[in-house]
Amino acid sequence: MVRESVDLLIEARWLLPMEPADRVLERHSVAVRGGRICALLPWQEAETRFEARERLRLHTHALLPGLVNLHTHAAMTLLRGLADDLPLMEWLQKHIWPAEMRFVTPEFVYDGTLLACAEMIRGGVTCFNDMYFFPEAAAKAALEAGMRAAIGMIVVDFPTPYAADPDDYLTKGMALRDQYRSNSLLSFCMAPHAPYTVSDKTFGKMLTYAAQIQVPIHVHLHETEEEIRESLRQHGVRPIERLRRLGLLGPDLVAVHMVHLTPEEVDLVACANASVVHCPSSNLKLASGFSPVAELMEHGVNVGLGTDGAASNNRLDVFQELRTAALLAKAVSGRANALPAHRVLQMATLNGARALGLENETGSLLPGKSADMVAVNLGTLELSPCYDPHSHLVYAAGREHVSHVWVQGRLLLNEGRLTRLDVDEIIARATRWGRRVAEADGSAPEGRGQ
Amino acid sequence: MVRESVDLLIEARWLLPMEPADRVLERHSVAVRGGRICALLPWQEAETRFEARERLRLHTHALLPGLVNLHTHAAMTLLRGLADDLPLMEWLQKHIWPAEMRFVTPEFVYDGTLLACAEMIRGGVTCFNDMYFFPEAAAKAALEAGMRAAIGMIVVDFPTPYAADPDDYLTKGMALRDQYRSNSLLSFCMAPHAPYTVSDKTFGKMLTYAAQIQVPIHVHLHETEEEIRESLRQHGVRPIERLRRLGLLGPDLVAVHMVHLTPEEVDLVACANASVVHCPSSNLKLASGFSPVAELMEHGVNVGLGTDGAASNNRLDVFQELRTAALLAKAVSGRANALPAHRVLQMATLNGARALGLENETGSLLPGKSADMVAVNLGTLELSPCYDPHSHLVYAAGREHVSHVWVQGRLLLNEGRLTRLDVDEIIARATRWGRRVAEADGSAPEGRGQ
Repeated sequence: MVRESVDLLIEARWLLPMEPADRVLERHSVAVRGGRICALLPWQEAETRFEARERLRLHTHALLPGLVNLHTHAAMTLLRGLADDLPLMEWLQKHIWPAEMRFVTPEFVYDGTLLACAEMIRGGVTCFNDMYFFPEAAAKAALEAGMRAAIGMIVVDFPTPYAADPDDYLTKGMALRDQYRSNSLLSFCMAPHAPYTVSDKTFGKMLTYAAQIQVPIHVHLHETEEEIRESLRQHGVRPIERLRRLGLLGPDLVAVHMVHLTPEEVDLVACANASVVHCPSSNLKLASGFSPVAELMEHGVNVGLGTDGAASNNRLDVFQELRTAALLAKAVSGRANALPAHRVLQMATLNGARALGLENETGSLLPGKSADMVAVNLGTLELSPCYDPHSHLVYAAGREHVSHVWVQGRLLLNEGRLTRLDVDEIIARATRWGRRVAEADGSAPEGRGQ
Repeated sequence: MVRESVDLLIEARWLLPMEPADRVLERHSVAVRGGRICALLPWQEAETRFEARERLRLHTHALLPGLVNLHTHAAMTLLRGLADDLPLMEWLQKHIWPAEMRFVTPEFVYDGTLLACAEMIRGGVTCFNDMYFFPEAAAKAALEAGMRAAIGMIVVDFPTPYAADPDDYLTKGMALRDQYRSNSLLSFCMAPHAPYTVSDKTFGKMLTYAAQIQVPIHVHLHETEEEIRESLRQHGVRPIERLRRLGLLGPDLVAVHMVHLTPEEVDLVACANASVVHCPSSNLKLASGFSPVAELMEHGVNVGLGTDGAASNNRLDVFQELRTAALLAKAVSGRANALPAHRVLQMATLNGARALGLENETGSLLPGKSADMVAVNLGTLELSPCYDPHSHLVYAAGREHVSHVWVQGRLLLNEGRLTRLDVDEIIARATRWGRRVAEADGSAPEGRGQ
């Protein structure tokens, strides 16, 4: 019998395809050819059927789809930990915004995003949905890192060093998207920043563009009570109702945070088939409140997970968000069986891909999909014994147990080591930026002149 | 000039003595002699003053007191992840209790505690407050690991494989304490399990013993609403009031969880100078509720941090609890500046030591105290740049960044590697226990016969 040749054959102790959410394939292999998954099958069958150019035995590992970080501002890694533990407005107005106005350039965004990519790959993330200034620099960094990214065509109604007015933002975003149209790793989102930074007119234009080029609309929504009060004052309605009237509340909407929701709004979001991004660490850290995630899920809403930027988290660590989301949903709903481990893992994989319109490409281990995968070693001290790989991945494991990461079948992390990026160089550049920012900010220990 | 000789001199980028909480000593050294800290001073002064037998340069690290895990059931590592995501009573009655009744022996407790010690040392924990059956086996494991431990003299009013009745528990506990009286690493607590498992009569006896031998009283308290309802039904008062009437509410009380508290109870606890153990992950996972920690701290209560057992967390990871506690306090109180990083670090160090009556021995870096210390590398990818070491330790770092751990000046972790424990052997024994438990439980994948 002639064996089919494949590029890579991985024997995993547990294979978690995430479709359906709770499936566990024990002692199964995944075969990869041309960057795509071609089969999942028991170790011995794989042995008989395939001739592999390369083989990998991961006999204490779980293999699952790469994690999707559905909301971040990647370049903000360079501002991580700058003036924490402050009231929200003091933090933004006295520290974050001045630093951004002064330092955010294409070089800053490139260096910060490359640092973010390195951190995310080490933490098992293969795809991120980004929203920041100079998205061309973020796109360049993502490609250099070999990651999949959805690049936000960001728009705010005020000028920044990146663009002068809404049309300028839009023109720049569309040009970038045209440049990378046929790139297999990059996709795009319209990214109106938030209801309080974008006018009705701009939202209208962005909706038209989004429909024309068929991309999702990535927007912060119902993050704080203040945002809702302000909308009632200025527009006479809550932000979700405002977006509904403007025509944005539909299946292309990727609504980030969604902390404060009435039962009617939960229904509205569910009926519109909109996606929600839950960012539990950020919501806690900024004291925004508790999103009713279990309720959203029970209403059938597609909910993914995001880290938010490193200035309000401060880890770009989807494992941390998995755990925090699962734990928090139990306490918020009052039910210890709310949001079980396999469901929250599906949020961070398939649901993320679905929100970005990438569910045919990534987010689960199915033959035909891109080989975007992560291996986690469940044989370590902190994870022995293992009764249930889903439970361990969410409640006990952390990014420190991620051993291998592939995007399109290319190995980006090998036994915990980045294969494509120069860690020392990335750290050196980050440290230089840190010194400049701290000196200007004056509040940080590095800026105290020692 | 003759230089004083010391055993060890560590140059740290940041030295965080935790007394006072927010002090940062940049580019300072700590000198250790005879297992005790003898000085903290700038690098260059240390160079001039001391002749060190051994030197260590940690120029990208923060050095702080070893973390105190103020509440755990260490041996339960062997049941970690057994049947998660279930309603509390189903989880306890169908899975945890049957497994405990069948498997918990001195051998189980020794193996499970040694596994827990290995995990805790790797995560920067130098001292833990334990409550479990067969405490003699836990004591033996802690000593083998070289850790500091407060061993609970556990009592419940029903028989278990460990003891037949309250007097039997007490006799065994007291004998153990007598055996280790002069041991410098072990201390003891009276450990009446909880108000719903211990009668008034037994509480009374334990109070007498605790006063005689001057040890703290370690008890679960106000964990769930059900516990409070049950107390009202059976005793006509809430558990705190019951303990107050029995004379237990005082400075020796170490009350674990304290989730459901009226403002009057917060005052009562504060006036009594009792200590509280906050276990945020466990409270979330079991859907117990949200402890008013910021309020307790503002009332001057001594609050420490605990992981609880690995069956309800599922990490014995105080770094995780630091982060969860700090984030959660902000959302629960509605203030982004509640429970700042340096305060939560003090909870996990000095406050823990204080609750155990060990504040003269450990919990901060002061000359004369035992050299119980942990070094965390803040120069890694995920932590560059570093604006504020306190913030990074709580919000961005994790146990994966712990590089060195000392107890009484003895190095237990060196560049992330355990120096005294055989990791492979510990994993092998854990795996064997896991196989037996899973077969008996039948619900876990390992038990499905694959």
